Amino acid sequence: MIQAKIVGAGGYGGVGITELLLKHPHVEIACLVSLSDTGRSMSDVFPHLRGFCDQTIVSPDDPKATEAYDLVIYSTPDGVGMQSAADELNKGAKVIDYSGDFRFNTPERYASYANFLGKDPHHAAPELLPATQYGLPELHALDTKQQLVGNPGCFAVSCILALAPAVKAGIINLSSIICDCKTGISGAGKKPNPSFHYPNRYDNMNAYRLSGHQHMVEIEQELGLLCDQELQITFTAQAVPVCRGIMSVCYADIKETDINTALDIYRTFYPHPGFVRVQPANQPASIADVRGTNYCNLTVDIDERTQRLRIVSHIDNLMKGQAGNALQVLNHLYGFEPDTALQHPGQYP
Amino acid sequence: MIQAKIVGAGGYGGVGITELLLKHPHVEIACLVSLSDTGRSMSDVFPHLRGFCDQTIVSPDDPKATEAYDLVIYSTPDGVGMQSAADELNKGAKVIDYSGDFRFNTPERYASYANFLGKDPHHAAPELLPATQYGLPELHALDTKQQLVGNPGCFAVSCILALAPAVKAGIINLSSIICDCKTGISGAGKKPNPSFHYPNRYDNMNAYRLSGHQHMVEIEQELGLLCDQELQITFTAQAVPVCRGIMSVCYADIKETDINTALDIYRTFYPHPGFVRVQPANQPASIADVRGTNYCNLTVDIDERTQRLRIVSHIDNLMKGQAGNALQVLNHLYGFEPDTALQHPGQYP
Amino acid sequence: MIQAKIVGAGGYGGVGITELLLKHPHVEIACLVSLSDTGRSMSDVFPHLRGFCDQTIVSPDDPKATEAYDLVIYSTPDGVGMQSAADELNKGAKVIDYSGDFRFNTPERYASYANFLGKDPHHAAPELLPATQYGLPELHALDTKQQLVGNPGCFAVSCILALAPAVKAGIINLSSIICDCKTGISGAGKKPNPSFHYPNRYDNMNAYRLSGHQHMVEIEQELGLLCDQELQITFTAQAVPVCRGIMSVCYADIKETDINTALDIYRTFYPHPGFVRVQPANQPASIADVRGTNYCNLTVDIDERTQRLRIVSHIDNLMKGQAGNALQVLNHLYGFEPDTALQHPGQYP
Amino acid sequence: MIQAKIVGAGGYGGVGITELLLKHPHVEIACLVSLSDTGRSMSDVFPHLRGFCDQTIVSPDDPKATEAYDLVIYSTPDGVGMQSAADELNKGAKVIDYSGDFRFNTPERYASYANFLGKDPHHAAPELLPATQYGLPELHALDTKQQLVGNPGCFAVSCILALAPAVKAGIINLSSIICDCKTGISGAGKKPNPSFHYPNRYDNMNAYRLSGHQHMVEIEQELGLLCDQELQITFTAQAVPVCRGIMSVCYADIKETDINTALDIYRTFYPHPGFVRVQPANQPASIADVRGTNYCNLTVDIDERTQRLRIVSHIDNLMKGQAGNALQVLNHLYGFEPDTALQHPGQYP
Repeated sequence: MIQAKIVGAGGYGGVGITELLLKHPHVEIACLVSLSDTGRSMSDVFPHLRGFCDQTIVSPDDPKATEAYDLVIYSTPDGVGMQSAADELNKGAKVIDYSGDFRFNTPERYASYANFLGKDPHHAAPELLPATQYGLPELHALDTKQQLVGNPGCFAVSCILALAPAVKAGIINLSSIICDCKTGISGAGKKPNPSFHYPNRYDNMNAYRLSGHQHMVEIEQELGLLCDQELQITFTAQAVPVCRGIMSVCYADIKETDINTALDIYRTFYPHPGFVRVQPANQPASIADVRGTNYCNLTVDIDERTQRLRIVSHIDNLMKGQAGNALQVLNHLYGFEPDTALQHPGQYP
Repeated sequence: MIQAKIVGAGGYGGVGITELLLKHPHVEIACLVSLSDTGRSMSDVFPHLRGFCDQTIVSPDDPKATEAYDLVIYSTPDGVGMQSAADELNKGAKVIDYSGDFRFNTPERYASYANFLGKDPHHAAPELLPATQYGLPELHALDTKQQLVGNPGCFAVSCILALAPAVKAGIINLSSIICDCKTGISGAGKKPNPSFHYPNRYDNMNAYRLSGHQHMVEIEQELGLLCDQELQITFTAQAVPVCRGIMSVCYADIKETDINTALDIYRTFYPHPGFVRVQPANQPASIADVRGTNYCNLTVDIDERTQRLRIVSHIDNLMKGQAGNALQVLNHLYGFEPDTALQHPGQYP
Repeated sequence: MIQAKIVGAGGYGGVGITELLLKHPHVEIACLVSLSDTGRSMSDVFPHLRGFCDQTIVSPDDPKATEAYDLVIYSTPDGVGMQSAADELNKGAKVIDYSGDFRFNTPERYASYANFLGKDPHHAAPELLPATQYGLPELHALDTKQQLVGNPGCFAVSCILALAPAVKAGIINLSSIICDCKTGISGAGKKPNPSFHYPNRYDNMNAYRLSGHQHMVEIEQELGLLCDQELQITFTAQAVPVCRGIMSVCYADIKETDINTALDIYRTFYPHPGFVRVQPANQPASIADVRGTNYCNLTVDIDERTQRLRIVSHIDNLMKGQAGNALQVLNHLYGFEPDTALQHPGQYP
Repeated sequence: MIQAKIVGAGGYGGVGITELLLKHPHVEIACLVSLSDTGRSMSDVFPHLRGFCDQTIVSPDDPKATEAYDLVIYSTPDGVGMQSAADELNKGAKVIDYSGDFRFNTPERYASYANFLGKDPHHAAPELLPATQYGLPELHALDTKQQLVGNPGCFAVSCILALAPAVKAGIINLSSIICDCKTGISGAGKKPNPSFHYPNRYDNMNAYRLSGHQHMVEIEQELGLLCDQELQITFTAQAVPVCRGIMSVCYADIKETDINTALDIYRTFYPHPGFVRVQPANQPASIADVRGTNYCNLTVDIDERTQRLRIVSHIDNLMKGQAGNALQVLNHLYGFEPDTALQHPGQYP
């Protein structure tokens, strides 16, 4: 059994990977680390886990936390993983980090990401960046000899999956890309905030961070790699009163193509079976179709009147947008079946 | 006192104008007409109106319904108002119709609108169309000698107000317009529907009618009039789990302009005081700011990296998107102060 | 015009009374005081008020805040009003306090209330208590010569109005009273909290403070006064995912009575017109019927099988449960029509 | 592999048991039957099941539906299962019925149940009633030689589990029982309805069917069996804007007992491990703790001031209140481990 340590166990990303690993036949949750909730059991913090995960959460400097583990998952904010990832790698661990710390291969890319967040643009472990991998298995066959993976941002997953086939096939004008994204509130994490206080949020929606969102950097990086060109997109983040789910509508002017060609391109790019399901515009779709699962459902459409490609991308931001994708990465890194512990259709309603 | 008849009193549009007219000093609700709920009191159907409006709802062929009134408001689906508007006009009434029946000056425009809805494209009263007025007072000073007004569609209000100043000023590329619109569920009316059944809708969102939405026709008509050109837009309708509210993000490539110029253009187009409030991107905005009111709040932004105008438009779909706008039209038609019975900031939270 | 100062303007209670007073013909908002948001305009904190209330919020020690006003409304937590109410009274003001500070005529009652909250049980101004009035005009004709009123707790309003007629008429067994109460989340105020963070609250409900809720003290006080006996109730507070609204179901064993007698007793106790509306069990009721209004709707029912009275009480916790009731008190204190600035049926949906 | 037929596959109960059986190692979904959606695939009706359950739904008279199966699950309204259960039993099937058709051992009990619903009180298959079993394994060790089980009502599960230990132990006054129950909207099924249309339900709550709810009959039957006495309860059904979940607060006057004794009685009645988890009042609880799972969490409390037992019962109405409990019954009938395919902690948030 692979012994896994989860850093940041007290947040949504931590509980998400815990729920998933409890069902994994080859991975054991060996250590739960958090700055808050230290000394409490995981099931005291998350009562639905009573009887499923009653381990005690320890602080990062607890002796148990500093032992060597086979796998370390950082479910932590930007700037945390970079402080200790080198240590973990030296102890022989594979490392998957949820934050932006290891999504980029150069300190410059990281700096432009950090600037959008108003964070320190200097990376604390730049020597690790050349070898880190962007953890989106649909785009990159992960190099299993490398041990460090940056798990993508939730908005980035939804937009990159929506646009990758079109960008790769060269059927759209690269300067015309617009990503209009709506996220559920769990994307903002577990910490209370006036904007997400129930009475402010229940019947409300808003656009935010119009001046620039950090996930643009990874979208532009990954799409650029697919077409070997620099590109810039317009990106709009919006919050709507759902808990889980991102729906991104991505627009781009088409060059020469039609809807059947586009559908073929998408279906070839995402072969069955896999976690991306492609469907035409006349088939109903909603985020309820992917809620609680690792799937990304893509509606592929062309607005014939304006010759514009329109992709509607649906994910669960805490699954394909976070913990589910991290587990998919884990399965790839260890050579397990890609859907191990991820074969779950969700619950309806 | 102006004697008003409300046709379609049993729906959301009917109760909305009823609530507003109860506070109007110059208009009296004289007759409530509906196909359903006939014989019941308005406050039996809408219990919050107990003691405020206990009148009995009558059927369209009730003698009371066929009397002459000063004003007839059709809060009815497409195709209803056109059947009897000529009669009402002949009896001397002013007519405001919520549907698409009188939003267009030619039968051809109406036909293209009706086609998007899958409805009969033949207009039953084409002779009335040349004189009808599109009821958006921010764009058109209404001709008070004319007696027939088509109240705009809710999505159309949000998009036209968002784009009109830019189109008129000629600062955007007309072929690059995209309207990405999210609506609350009240926009679909009062009739239950599997899509809007609470368990399906509560934590869900979806795009719909991708093949074309009828409100595009009026957006293209009104924007085209402002620049004296034909234009075509990409329009995406989406449903999110809020009750009241539309948030539309409208995109267009800019020609030569900058954010300060754009803000000036918008503020000049919508002088204070009025129902459109313009704000810059660094000022927080959400649909809660306009909930329950006749205001439209516009965030004016330019994405400098991609040279794209981005306007975020916030309205209450049942107020500025329906009953509130109808009352604003009424006030214009009769020469009342524009905000009579509309001076309401809403309630928070 | 009465010059009013609102202390605690930045909270839900403060914005609620501000919205109401903006429509009051005889009261002017002269001063807005808050510990937070000092120096910002009210409409910057609450953007829906832009153009309606753009006054600057001042701190409690600002010279403007220490001037004399005709009326001071404390929309502040327990323990605040008692610090300065005597000063305000000495300056000639009438004082309405939303908290528990002035709901009790003896320090002992206050202490038992404060103990349930885990607060200091010593009252800072016990000399004011003998003359303070419990501000529920349906129970007490307020003495307009007295100048100090404690506005009731929201749960207390819903339960006292539900039970007062039965207790006064002597038709129920006093030891058998159970109040099962469900509140919307706005009742917890504007400050973010893990329990009311949207992702935790959106599809959730829970009972809380089972060991005893402070509002029990005032319910027992007021019902006891009506029957001139001490009594004790069982009270259960529950939070459900609505914003505004309390629905309390109150149970008690009946002595000799029947449903018609009970309905008569209730209708006589709450004569028309007034803010309490009585209805039988076969008439549909929901909190939407009172949302945004100062009404309390009571469904009066008897379970014939078990001979138990069951009253379902519906209020908007921020209106009849807080700001609306405070304005009703104000109208009584000054001799205005009871419904001045409160004649509002609400909006549906 | 046990071959199972699901009748009523197109509803919430049908999709719920489908989701569960997909994970069951010993049961295969052999036939999906529904009156609506005939000819469509299950994953067309419920898109989250794409790739998991793509079988075609057949009508009840389709040859495939009339074959013999090992197990028939009726997820159908009252009055359906009784029409054909005898046939299924004759063909050798075990039968689990979700409705009230087989919850009672006498036609008289059924008639009183049906009367509350306004349905025909005559049972179509009274000869089957003596041998049917009430399917609540926590109360009854099911007789595995019997082949017919009535799955309990959702409210009934929550109240019976809450009160059974106290009734059995004789610590409460049987005439003092009150069940105040709040249900999520999925309890009303998949068919749209004005009351559960999103705009009416999103910020609303209401009590309903005050004149008597059919689930009272089974609560009274089962509690009566435990104490060998007839008893009558007061029961209040309420709808709140959550999707899944029932929270019932059950009250009763205690005879001689205290909180520690009560906790002991409950913990002994529901031994660990099992699907009922007992906790004291100072431990936080909410329906999120059981969402998506087969657990029932009971908070056991005594109000010392009034000497009243108060149990707060939390279930997922579609799991322990319906499909989950049905699977638990299935596991008992076949001698599988009780938690086969039910070991799921749920997802948070």
